Amino acid sequence: MTNLSKTISRPVLKIAADQQEWEEDEIVTEYPLTIFLNDEEFATIVCTPADLEEMVIGFLAAEGAIKSYEEVKQLSIDEAQGFAYVDLHKETILSQSFYSKRRITSCCGKSRQSFYFFSDARTAKPAEGEITISPAQCMHLMRELQASSDIHRQTGGVHNAALCSADEVLLTYSDIGRHNALDKIYGKCLQDQISTQDKVLVFSGRISSEVLLKAAKIGAAVILSKSAPTDLALQLAEELNITAVGFIRNDKMNVYTHAHRILVP
Amino acid sequence: MTNLSKTISRPVLKIAADQQEWEEDEIVTEYPLTIFLNDEEFATIVCTPADLEEMVIGFLAAEGAIKSYEEVKQLSIDEAQGFAYVDLHKETILSQSFYSKRRITSCCGKSRQSFYFFSDARTAKPAEGEITISPAQCMHLMRELQASSDIHRQTGGVHNAALCSADEVLLTYSDIGRHNALDKIYGKCLQDQISTQDKVLVFSGRISSEVLLKAAKIGAAVILSKSAPTDLALQLAEELNITAVGFIRNDKMNVYTHAHRILVP
Repeated sequence: MTNLSKTISRPVLKIAADQQEWEEDEIVTEYPLTIFLNDEEFATIVCTPADLEEMVIGFLAAEGAIKSYEEVKQLSIDEAQGFAYVDLHKETILSQSFYSKRRITSCCGKSRQSFYFFSDARTAKPAEGEITISPAQCMHLMRELQASSDIHRQTGGVHNAALCSADEVLLTYSDIGRHNALDKIYGKCLQDQISTQDKVLVFSGRISSEVLLKAAKIGAAVILSKSAPTDLALQLAEELNITAVGFIRNDKMNVYTHAHRILVP
Repeated sequence: MTNLSKTISRPVLKIAADQQEWEEDEIVTEYPLTIFLNDEEFATIVCTPADLEEMVIGFLAAEGAIKSYEEVKQLSIDEAQGFAYVDLHKETILSQSFYSKRRITSCCGKSRQSFYFFSDARTAKPAEGEITISPAQCMHLMRELQASSDIHRQTGGVHNAALCSADEVLLTYSDIGRHNALDKIYGKCLQDQISTQDKVLVFSGRISSEVLLKAAKIGAAVILSKSAPTDLALQLAEELNITAVGFIRNDKMNVYTHAHRILVP
């Protein structure tokens, strides 16, 4: 159970005030694991690939599928495919309603290079915008986003998201749920028919695969974050033609994908 | 659309090095909104209660249920009940598989005081442990949790969770997913039959309702966090007899519920 790595190395364009260079950097891994319970697909969990057996057991117990470890007849994990097979001594008596809460549709699962959920594949299209933005503008937008969050938002650990032109913040929303802040932007753009191809998304949280897919659905070609991306998010960003920039802080930033949209001095 | 508050005021036992007192503090609100699409229950989203229309529209678009705002015939929100009713011009042609990814079972929704998901009500029982712990021990455990996270974990924004006695860290797990870190603890406890009633959970992230419910399922009577709780988590903590402590940093901490387990000097 130790073939999977918690991080992978990737080339990153590191930009500081007066210099830029490509360097190898460690990116945290995001690993989808699909659980089959008594031969039936039960759930897909996106996780750090370590301690997977504990996670599967704990998840099944938390969902009410098992009450004790003794109920598990067999548990095996196919690390390469990302599948966990669990057989219980009893038949699965749970109705769909019991475990639909975190049940998610099957991923294609055939290739790590093109992991999508089915519903995402229908709605997340490659970005078409050819907006360009300078590092100074990226840093300015991140400062503006942070300035727009009041103390309650900071206190409550609320996520902030903004839709911006290269020059200024146009819309900003906050929510305790990271997806909700992005959904609010998406909804407002649809309501007011705001074009998104020529815009930049700025986000306070990590760029996970779900955040990246949301950016693709919104239609933004550039996503800026003050935090880290995951490897899966960056694979999706490559495929979906999205420029992903992370760690925008202290006048530095890391460009991970499609760096041509970043106008380096 | 302005009757709901993003924060509420609550009494909190604030403990610093040499003093303690009850003060009113602002707690961020966590608000469950159940969306009905063409009269059918579609999803429940736990969110910050602001900009709900934008969120509903964006969520439906992200899930592939609508492609444009024009497809929405009518949208109304019952704030008191926490229901959003959306009628589309077209019939809902999506099969279950299209939107099951984030579909979650119905909440009882009758009272904010007892919000549970159905599967949670079966597995989350009131804590029975009567462990006690001093403020100094709480701060020590939080320092130990943070020391156990290596640079990659910090860089990647990974969540850390630990199961502890009052004196020491017994188990620690990390994951990019907050729930997964807690599931790993739960799984290990089940596998090795580790008792949890006399233990303390220590968590790097915010105490949301889902985190609190997970603690209840694990069976821990005390949860310690370096971050903020939500109001919904604290309501559940009250009901489930769990001592919730937040903002453990700089030799200070806030006790929110069931303070009798905290041995003040």
